[in-house]
Amino acid sequence: MSGTNLAGDELTSAVVASFDGSPDPRLREVLGALVRHLHAFAREVDLTEEEYFAGIDFLTRTGQISTGTRQEFVLLADVLGLSMLTVGLGNPKPPAATASTVFGPFFVEGSPAVELGGDVANGAPGQPCLVSGRVLATSGEPIAGALVETWQSDEDGFYDVQKDLAEPQNRGHLTTDAEGNYSFWAVRPVAYPIPADGPVGELLRAGGRGPMRPAHIHFMVTAPGYARLITHVFAAGDEHLGDDAVFGVKDSLVAEFTEHPAGSAAPDGRELDRPWFSVEYDLVLAPVEETRPQQG
Amino acid sequence: MSGTNLAGDELTSAVVASFDGSPDPRLREVLGALVRHLHAFAREVDLTEEEYFAGIDFLTRTGQISTGTRQEFVLLADVLGLSMLTVGLGNPKPPAATASTVFGPFFVEGSPAVELGGDVANGAPGQPCLVSGRVLATSGEPIAGALVETWQSDEDGFYDVQKDLAEPQNRGHLTTDAEGNYSFWAVRPVAYPIPADGPVGELLRAGGRGPMRPAHIHFMVTAPGYARLITHVFAAGDEHLGDDAVFGVKDSLVAEFTEHPAGSAAPDGRELDRPWFSVEYDLVLAPVEETRPQQG
Repeated sequence: MSGTNLAGDELTSAVVASFDGSPDPRLREVLGALVRHLHAFAREVDLTEEEYFAGIDFLTRTGQISTGTRQEFVLLADVLGLSMLTVGLGNPKPPAATASTVFGPFFVEGSPAVELGGDVANGAPGQPCLVSGRVLATSGEPIAGALVETWQSDEDGFYDVQKDLAEPQNRGHLTTDAEGNYSFWAVRPVAYPIPADGPVGELLRAGGRGPMRPAHIHFMVTAPGYARLITHVFAAGDEHLGDDAVFGVKDSLVAEFTEHPAGSAAPDGRELDRPWFSVEYDLVLAPVEETRPQQG
Repeated sequence: MSGTNLAGDELTSAVVASFDGSPDPRLREVLGALVRHLHAFAREVDLTEEEYFAGIDFLTRTGQISTGTRQEFVLLADVLGLSMLTVGLGNPKPPAATASTVFGPFFVEGSPAVELGGDVANGAPGQPCLVSGRVLATSGEPIAGALVETWQSDEDGFYDVQKDLAEPQNRGHLTTDAEGNYSFWAVRPVAYPIPADGPVGELLRAGGRGPMRPAHIHFMVTAPGYARLITHVFAAGDEHLGDDAVFGVKDSLVAEFTEHPAGSAAPDGRELDRPWFSVEYDLVLAPVEETRPQQG
């Protein structure tokens, strides 16, 4: 029963109580807290009806610009720090494990399979970059057969899904060998602005904020018995490491991208007629039992 | 500058501070409060990544099901009590003025013009109902030339925009005469479930909540020099007055819908061969200067 003439705290209590009939205690907890905090926000700022309708319009457009390859609500959660906050809450892990960071709006299911040492760039513009390392357990043991998914922007700062392409670029998945090794050729990532042609772009402009993210490569690593790792490797020296638009930088995720002169042979024997880069980064997974929240 | 390794309170402070560059102090205030309350919510419930992604998906679908004639985000704000809270915050008004309630998701711009005493039902199924009253100022003076917009469901509980119709039904606008009178023929409204085929319907089902709204007619009344009134007139005796799915009922908005036998003449001389209803309700507007927030 919600009653009549509800206003102020009484209204909030009635809305919270309206979920009492749910059979799911977690749903009751989450929705109750959501309602209390949402109402506290509106009350604190004395939300006007004009602002209410502006918010409705903003959220509607955020949903409507989203597609299978563009997730504007993820981007919104990113720029409001909610993504990074959730990453922190959801990933209690031992210090030896690689830190997590935001998932971002550009992951696409079903990326191309790539052989170890193969090419994921697939013609994407940019300076060649050999990306390699091992997937390890926190114990130091290599993890064979781990699924490594990777995606990133090109040298113009665009992901493939932001361009009108027939085939994926800078996106693929591969499987580690018996020693846990992974390696692939991509392009050197660059700093880029997050998409600013939608509601989130409007928000950043109105909020006086910059849209830049420091150069990075996305990784999602999955192996049975281990907590899935979603992270980036950032490029050392990038001028935007200190003002990432989505608050995602952790110092432990910053690695050196080393430049090599044209004509120098790569470790895999490949010879390039132009300068190329390499980065090596080990991805360390925590066993599932080390990531469970502590009792009490 | 957002810095690196941001987590917990430090992350929240960095996101709030990221809007410091905005030239709009109100935007800084609203976004700062939004971020603090959003983060406090996530922290209080220890939001999981699974729940984060479920929320992203829910909001995306809420935007995508919305159209020019269906506003699922308004419906969401309604069932979470945010609409009613905003109505209360945004409408400080003298007690003599008609109370406000939720706008709802079914208003459509550009409704048909109707003469005083005319028919807005336009063929909608339902028992005929003569709706009349005056638009008055809180001083008691009639307001001539006030714009009265009205919309409501039919006897099956559907608004015209929920059906596939060539023309609007149960929707129109008219102008008060020199004595402030308005009147129109519509159908007797009935209690109905809010649309349950979208994300908000899922939420209600998961939350163990009913979808019913008590019978009502929507009004939006506009006159120069007066605060715009958005309200409903509810039908006395409706079994859902105490558990409105959107928490919108105020006792002062409940009016008697009187039944008249078939063949009895209506005040306008119309003779109906079946039972009909009438309701009379005065809509009282507050002058703009009486609705401004108090100083201090």
